[in-house]
Amino acid sequence: MMLVGKQIGFGLTGSHCTLEEVIPMINALQAEGAEVIPFVSHTIQTTETKFGTPNQWLESIEKAAGQEAVNSIPKAEPYGPKTPLDAMLIAPMTGSSVSKFANAQTDSPVLMAAKATLRNSAPVVLAISTNDALGLNASNLAKLLQMHHVYLVPFGQDNPYKKPTSLVARMEDIPPTIEAAIRGEQYQPLIIEKFAD
Amino acid sequence: MMLVGKQIGFGLTGSHCTLEEVIPMINALQAEGAEVIPFVSHTIQTTETKFGTPNQWLESIEKAAGQEAVNSIPKAEPYGPKTPLDAMLIAPMTGSSVSKFANAQTDSPVLMAAKATLRNSAPVVLAISTNDALGLNASNLAKLLQMHHVYLVPFGQDNPYKKPTSLVARMEDIPPTIEAAIRGEQYQPLIIEKFAD
Amino acid sequence: MMLVGKQIGFGLTGSHCTLEEVIPMINALQAEGAEVIPFVSHTIQTTETKFGTPNQWLESIEKAAGQEAVNSIPKAEPYGPKTPLDAMLIAPMTGSSVSKFANAQTDSPVLMAAKATLRNSAPVVLAISTNDALGLNASNLAKLLQMHHVYLVPFGQDNPYKKPTSLVARMEDIPPTIEAAIRGEQYQPLIIEKFAD
Amino acid sequence: MMLVGKQIGFGLTGSHCTLEEVIPMINALQAEGAEVIPFVSHTIQTTETKFGTPNQWLESIEKAAGQEAVNSIPKAEPYGPKTPLDAMLIAPMTGSSVSKFANAQTDSPVLMAAKATLRNSAPVVLAISTNDALGLNASNLAKLLQMHHVYLVPFGQDNPYKKPTSLVARMEDIPPTIEAAIRGEQYQPLIIEKFAD
Amino acid sequence: MMLVGKQIGFGLTGSHCTLEEVIPMINALQAEGAEVIPFVSHTIQTTETKFGTPNQWLESIEKAAGQEAVNSIPKAEPYGPKTPLDAMLIAPMTGSSVSKFANAQTDSPVLMAAKATLRNSAPVVLAISTNDALGLNASNLAKLLQMHHVYLVPFGQDNPYKKPTSLVARMEDIPPTIEAAIRGEQYQPLIIEKFAD
Amino acid sequence: MMLVGKQIGFGLTGSHCTLEEVIPMINALQAEGAEVIPFVSHTIQTTETKFGTPNQWLESIEKAAGQEAVNSIPKAEPYGPKTPLDAMLIAPMTGSSVSKFANAQTDSPVLMAAKATLRNSAPVVLAISTNDALGLNASNLAKLLQMHHVYLVPFGQDNPYKKPTSLVARMEDIPPTIEAAIRGEQYQPLIIEKFAD
Repeated sequence: MMLVGKQIGFGLTGSHCTLEEVIPMINALQAEGAEVIPFVSHTIQTTETKFGTPNQWLESIEKAAGQEAVNSIPKAEPYGPKTPLDAMLIAPMTGSSVSKFANAQTDSPVLMAAKATLRNSAPVVLAISTNDALGLNASNLAKLLQMHHVYLVPFGQDNPYKKPTSLVARMEDIPPTIEAAIRGEQYQPLIIEKFAD
Repeated sequence: MMLVGKQIGFGLTGSHCTLEEVIPMINALQAEGAEVIPFVSHTIQTTETKFGTPNQWLESIEKAAGQEAVNSIPKAEPYGPKTPLDAMLIAPMTGSSVSKFANAQTDSPVLMAAKATLRNSAPVVLAISTNDALGLNASNLAKLLQMHHVYLVPFGQDNPYKKPTSLVARMEDIPPTIEAAIRGEQYQPLIIEKFAD
Repeated sequence: MMLVGKQIGFGLTGSHCTLEEVIPMINALQAEGAEVIPFVSHTIQTTETKFGTPNQWLESIEKAAGQEAVNSIPKAEPYGPKTPLDAMLIAPMTGSSVSKFANAQTDSPVLMAAKATLRNSAPVVLAISTNDALGLNASNLAKLLQMHHVYLVPFGQDNPYKKPTSLVARMEDIPPTIEAAIRGEQYQPLIIEKFAD
Repeated sequence: MMLVGKQIGFGLTGSHCTLEEVIPMINALQAEGAEVIPFVSHTIQTTETKFGTPNQWLESIEKAAGQEAVNSIPKAEPYGPKTPLDAMLIAPMTGSSVSKFANAQTDSPVLMAAKATLRNSAPVVLAISTNDALGLNASNLAKLLQMHHVYLVPFGQDNPYKKPTSLVARMEDIPPTIEAAIRGEQYQPLIIEKFAD
Repeated sequence: MMLVGKQIGFGLTGSHCTLEEVIPMINALQAEGAEVIPFVSHTIQTTETKFGTPNQWLESIEKAAGQEAVNSIPKAEPYGPKTPLDAMLIAPMTGSSVSKFANAQTDSPVLMAAKATLRNSAPVVLAISTNDALGLNASNLAKLLQMHHVYLVPFGQDNPYKKPTSLVARMEDIPPTIEAAIRGEQYQPLIIEKFAD
Repeated sequence: MMLVGKQIGFGLTGSHCTLEEVIPMINALQAEGAEVIPFVSHTIQTTETKFGTPNQWLESIEKAAGQEAVNSIPKAEPYGPKTPLDAMLIAPMTGSSVSKFANAQTDSPVLMAAKATLRNSAPVVLAISTNDALGLNASNLAKLLQMHHVYLVPFGQDNPYKKPTSLVARMEDIPPTIEAAIRGEQYQPLIIEKFAD
């Protein structure tokens, strides 16, 4: 119960193949005592994939969180000045979201909540899942590794032979990474052999 | 009357809390003799906030300018080859616009007019308003500070204690900054104590 | 017939003034024995310009390729794991696409196919056409010049006096650049006097 | 007496015109209870300027600190693993030092002590003094503004008309900036009108 | 005997604590049939540390290689046009060398040999050892991960709790990484749990 | 006689194979009426190559200029505040100098004169000669292309097949590029087929 009384934002972006693994982490955070406020990107709200429809995913997310998802930029903005979060998580975080966040392009409810949290010098925690992380996205990841108040859920190569530039976070490390981030620390080890999980 | 005969593009992006302060600058430029052509981003055209509806803002902007706002990329493109501007202003300029402009991602009428102006080696003047300017957006701002033909309206921290990474331009300095930019100079001082205004 | 049996992705983005020159290259690649799969950006699908309507362009593209264009991100994704391409071309490549690709912001079918191809360590070939290539886009172009598995169709200034920062690829060099890229080589000379063509 | 028991590294680099103003800050830190360990760059050790000889400066520095200056990379290295500092200050910090530190080029005793301090997740505090801070050095400054465990002494333009890209720290703010940095906070306001001092 | 007839440059830079582990790799490459030409940085040639004197290290290196070390930039330059290498290795590669190489600052015999090798489109292989790899050096490492003809020896955190931003290569992977690089491939897995070795 | 009464700084760095072609440009500038003040890097002052000794080169340079070369940073500094230049040229400019200048690392008399000139908002003109210009140095070149008050002498690939990433300036274009730079313009065409010269 290390997160009692904490308001944790939980932003989901469109790495659809990872959603099923990530949603139970909402409950894991609640089990530590946190209130979890879900935020969803436009892709989550509109893109149908072989993994499910937008409605199915939204229903799962809102059911787990026990509240409606924040689904627009104007609705996300007050999480800066009015109802600040203790920490904002993005999980799963797609390559495009990594790029936009690192470059300060705030065009979704999830990224607006992250920006609003940094505005307050509160921690933002990222659980990446993208196959260009050691490729064109590496510069963005490098920038985020160095950024004040930004923390990363431990990550590693998921399939070094078939997807040599892919990195994925170990989603079950989300709760301890958030707890460390709230203390101003990066959970360690950060770089793992995810392919051995 | 330092801007007699000048065609000034005036691009507005979605920092809605600053719009009310910025729109009178359209008249201030006209008072110097300029014709002011307004350009509006997609956010201005579509996002309702507590500060007003898109229609209210569009009406204020077009009334001040005395002409219709340019509201699409194809309509903005001719301001490069066909009807070049003497200067293009972006005010207020959101963090996302700073990021997109610095990274050459031209996906709005406002940014297309800015790109078209640089194509002609004519000046682009930026009046920023964003709370990540000393955070994730700092690299973009640094790039724009160094860029040929780009000039900044003097800016500073608006609230260093509550929003330590926020920077906002002093909007009443828009006319002299444009005048200096047309002469190829940066208006000074550039870095101010906005919080003391 | 240097491309017999090769699957070449051909991504078109919204530099509408260049489309007419580029579409015959679909046939040029087929003449070398390749199957050409067309991908189209959102701009191609939705923006009407003085050069034509989206439907006219789509019809031309699909007629040349002899198959339907891939027009959504979920449809483009399988070109990574399931039906990999031997090479992915983007021609014409707008300034915005250069920026998004260099920064790993994968928000269109064309860019998703390019990302999927890099995931497989297969070559991506770029034929740029943008008037900010020596301006705000220069950093992105520099990044792509250095990138593993990325190759450029020879390019140069098209009009150094009127558009001093503009660069355009020599579109007829697309076939030999792809052939070299498949061998792991950059076709040379890379930097040309396009204005003298 | 807010720094009782603290070991503060004080690194001086070759902005010779600022040395006279900076050296008294050694005593100011001691007055707060700190032990001050001086570090000197190669330029301080070898370059004679109109402001004095290397020996004169070394003598002043060591007299103020009450101990010998650390003057080589091997002597600076143990301040990471063996005798860690509570904070490392660089004042004055030249443009070249800003560039080298931001780019991780650790080729002087001062920069080695800063690197060793970051290795321990302890704070590094920078008091810049360089006339290219809003020019070619702006990207480096932007990177440092965002960097975990790096803090800046408040700075501003010292002479906006004659040196429009110059920024200088307010040296008397060194003690409170170090105190805030040890608490994990950036002293505010960060951006000041130095020219009005 | 996978390297028979190959000329391999072996550049050593001043991560003195790693030298003892690295020098036997000279013999490991010879055992695969390679001729090994050693290159030494200025730091190797001039800096005495607790790990030994410059002369001791030079003697060990030259004895292992069976030839004199290349110790100046003019002597390294011909390894581009005149006597090209099949691959150039830098091991151990310090943080400063990572920074200088990534930023194209060629001021040592080792970096000149690496630049000369890239000039020929031949592979450069890097075995890093630096405690700022996930800190200020992360951007440089990210750039090198993406760079044409550059390959990395697998690396990981060596001590995530005491040195959270430190990364060190697994030196015994040098031979297979060079063999893969000569084939144009990155040896995998690239990201390892070095702390578990 | 377009440069009558102008003080032009002429900085030479260690691309020794280009020196013979560059030195006559000192006289070409004098023929236009300029006074030429030579600046030499440490490499020029200390490195012997197959192209000549430091003394031979210094003698040639000083004889052409008709005055002693500025050979230290303290001697170069007054060309900012005290005896400002109308323009500062660097020719030939090595890859290392490109990197250091772009990154604001001012550690030579030549770079100090360039920094001092930018401090005054006066033009700096660069004539590059480096075989990594389309490789690891491309990002630096891209930054300089965009930089306020920086202009480039037209450049192109000198040998696209043997040195595919090499770019060299057309040295005889130095005088007109300086004349345009003093007017605030970039001489065009900028990108040429140097290999066809």
